[in-house]
Amino acid sequence: MPNQGRKIIIAASVLSALFATSLSAEEGPTPEQQAVTATENRQAVFKLLAVNIGPIVGMARGAPFDAAVAERNARRIAVLATMIPERFAAMDTRAFAVETEALPVIWENPDDFAAKAAALAEAALTFADTAAGGDQAATLGGLRNLGGSCGNCHDSYRVDDE
Amino acid sequence: MPNQGRKIIIAASVLSALFATSLSAEEGPTPEQQAVTATENRQAVFKLLAVNIGPIVGMARGAPFDAAVAERNARRIAVLATMIPERFAAMDTRAFAVETEALPVIWENPDDFAAKAAALAEAALTFADTAAGGDQAATLGGLRNLGGSCGNCHDSYRVDDE
Repeated sequence: MPNQGRKIIIAASVLSALFATSLSAEEGPTPEQQAVTATENRQAVFKLLAVNIGPIVGMARGAPFDAAVAERNARRIAVLATMIPERFAAMDTRAFAVETEALPVIWENPDDFAAKAAALAEAALTFADTAAGGDQAATLGGLRNLGGSCGNCHDSYRVDDE
Repeated sequence: MPNQGRKIIIAASVLSALFATSLSAEEGPTPEQQAVTATENRQAVFKLLAVNIGPIVGMARGAPFDAAVAERNARRIAVLATMIPERFAAMDTRAFAVETEALPVIWENPDDFAAKAAALAEAALTFADTAAGGDQAATLGGLRNLGGSCGNCHDSYRVDDE
């Protein structure tokens, strides 16, 4: 199908232009630059996890309960959680002076690290299913379990900054 | 249910500790600091969009076709797209000297901006559904449409850096 092939080539060139920054890895950034990008990309996952759990924590602290937002954000957290091991597997940055709270032990225990991310995804889906029922006490009561999934991983794999 | 209430309080305090950074907005960062955080959080969405479209573009450029990855990443893009208008609505940073490629006109046209993000989400779901069928030519042929949804918004709302 030559037409299909042509379409693919056009799509690739359109996207190369659109995502010049993200694709520049193919044009030879230094390993140091690659490490900074890899670090920023994985931190992007955690920023969005925080942004999405924020309103749920807010509800537990007295903001008006919104079951739809609680469910939506928890489902987003489940999706974001799948990106955690992937972003760390993308590049082992232990040899680089990047600004990070990620402990080197992450790359020594990729299976346990991935299992903890999978547990977060599962806890987020459980939370979302409860929120879908619309019961405020049941939903927010489940926050401890969801937060525990975050904490389990932070305890082992994040710099203890407290 | 006092026990339920107690659980909620524990959950909130656990999460306050876990997400000290994200919750510090309540403890009084300056407007400038808030603008930087808001900018970083919205850029996190675009970093993850790029990270997820990257492998699809790679397939169009000759990397081995993986329908499951194409579908998974497109579904992630659909989820991430819903966060775009939300992250820009979170704070109008026009008055601050933040490092950004976002054009000020975004905050003058929130409805059109949101519509373009919704179109991206829809295009990503269409792409994912095609990928689920497993047909390489059909899937990658759809990249032009998906990339077009990115470009439609970049044309109007992002600094033209080419």
